[in-house]
Amino acid sequence: MKQKKFRTEHQQFVVEGVKVVKELLASPYKVDAVYVLGEVADEIAALSSLAPIIITEQQLQKISNLETPNKVLAVASIPQSSFSFPQVKNKLSLALDTINDPGNLGTIIRTAAWFGIDTIICSPNTTDAWNPKAVQATMGALFRTNVVYADLKTVVEEYNSTQTPVYATALDGTDIYKITLSQNGLIVIGSESHGVSPELLALIDTKLHIPSFSSGVAESLNAAVAAGVVCSEFRRR
Amino acid sequence: MKQKKFRTEHQQFVVEGVKVVKELLASPYKVDAVYVLGEVADEIAALSSLAPIIITEQQLQKISNLETPNKVLAVASIPQSSFSFPQVKNKLSLALDTINDPGNLGTIIRTAAWFGIDTIICSPNTTDAWNPKAVQATMGALFRTNVVYADLKTVVEEYNSTQTPVYATALDGTDIYKITLSQNGLIVIGSESHGVSPELLALIDTKLHIPSFSSGVAESLNAAVAAGVVCSEFRRR
Repeated sequence: MKQKKFRTEHQQFVVEGVKVVKELLASPYKVDAVYVLGEVADEIAALSSLAPIIITEQQLQKISNLETPNKVLAVASIPQSSFSFPQVKNKLSLALDTINDPGNLGTIIRTAAWFGIDTIICSPNTTDAWNPKAVQATMGALFRTNVVYADLKTVVEEYNSTQTPVYATALDGTDIYKITLSQNGLIVIGSESHGVSPELLALIDTKLHIPSFSSGVAESLNAAVAAGVVCSEFRRR
Repeated sequence: MKQKKFRTEHQQFVVEGVKVVKELLASPYKVDAVYVLGEVADEIAALSSLAPIIITEQQLQKISNLETPNKVLAVASIPQSSFSFPQVKNKLSLALDTINDPGNLGTIIRTAAWFGIDTIICSPNTTDAWNPKAVQATMGALFRTNVVYADLKTVVEEYNSTQTPVYATALDGTDIYKITLSQNGLIVIGSESHGVSPELLALIDTKLHIPSFSSGVAESLNAAVAAGVVCSEFRRR
């Protein structure tokens, strides 16, 4: 289940650790199996409709993706959802263009949840949100977020056809501190190395840029940190 | 050199990858050795006062800390620096209390550099900034930043004795969007799980909080994302 191939064929993924598995059990996700060490069996059983399967530390070590396995591992089903414009039209949503790093993807989902953004639309080439590293980095926010994969050009065209605002981060964008931002619409975040793809950027009216206050020219922002600053700017009042 | 023990004894650390090693070579850091694949030998030699040592991909694989080694690995000396209040008194600096994750530490250093913060004071129990994972996460910003380890209570007392502002992030802090922030002073960032330690917090006048816009209660922010939002609030105008 560490392999994307397995996740695609079986539509299942792995969640680990007491905190994050508890978030899973409290969510609408379908849980298919829960493996626990004896010491947390009662605690987990109390939250789960499935009886947990007690395993040894050695067995957990074998099936875990973590360097330090954390007492419980669950297998759950990947939800089947697709992009629906009417559901997001009046809300603020995030689109991710080619985010390759699972840790960054997971941290962005976690950050979006903090800022009350519950739909994330990923380009088909963005890394898999149900990859173990991404799941763990969300700290459970994944289970409360509607994550869909869709062609971002088609999505942006739907926003454009109804004059719903679309923003993108871009190096030549307007200073984000000096512009009035809408409380609904779509924010497109690009990859650290290449930004939002030019074909997509061509469809987007408002480009935003986080200015640097460094005297040097070599500085850059991590994709998840940039997403956090952008979400904060949209929500602050 | 993957081991902290080695780094402490020899006061050396490892930097990898074409981009980050180039940043190292352009910095004031003392470089002790550069190992390269033949294909980038000329490119690196042009930037280095030391002759690079050409090695094979197999040799690089053996000494590399990366899953996918990236053509060049350098060994450099850890700079010896200590906290000096007169040097930072009129600037904005960051203090990190018990940041355990090297990736988060490196990303915070990178973020601070973007926002023009060039001194970072780490509590002695914060993870080592010259750990390979931290170094890589800084994307080179480490070599342009003054990172020191010091007792944060002593540091905060120095700020307090001269009425230089000190801020800390805390769950019960003032809404960061609703307060006027100084352009000099110290911002203390705490760990994700425990925040700024109570003994330190007791010495700090202004506590800040990034409000959540989520309807749920389980959300949290990654330490590096929180640092990014805080730095952005201090610098935005």
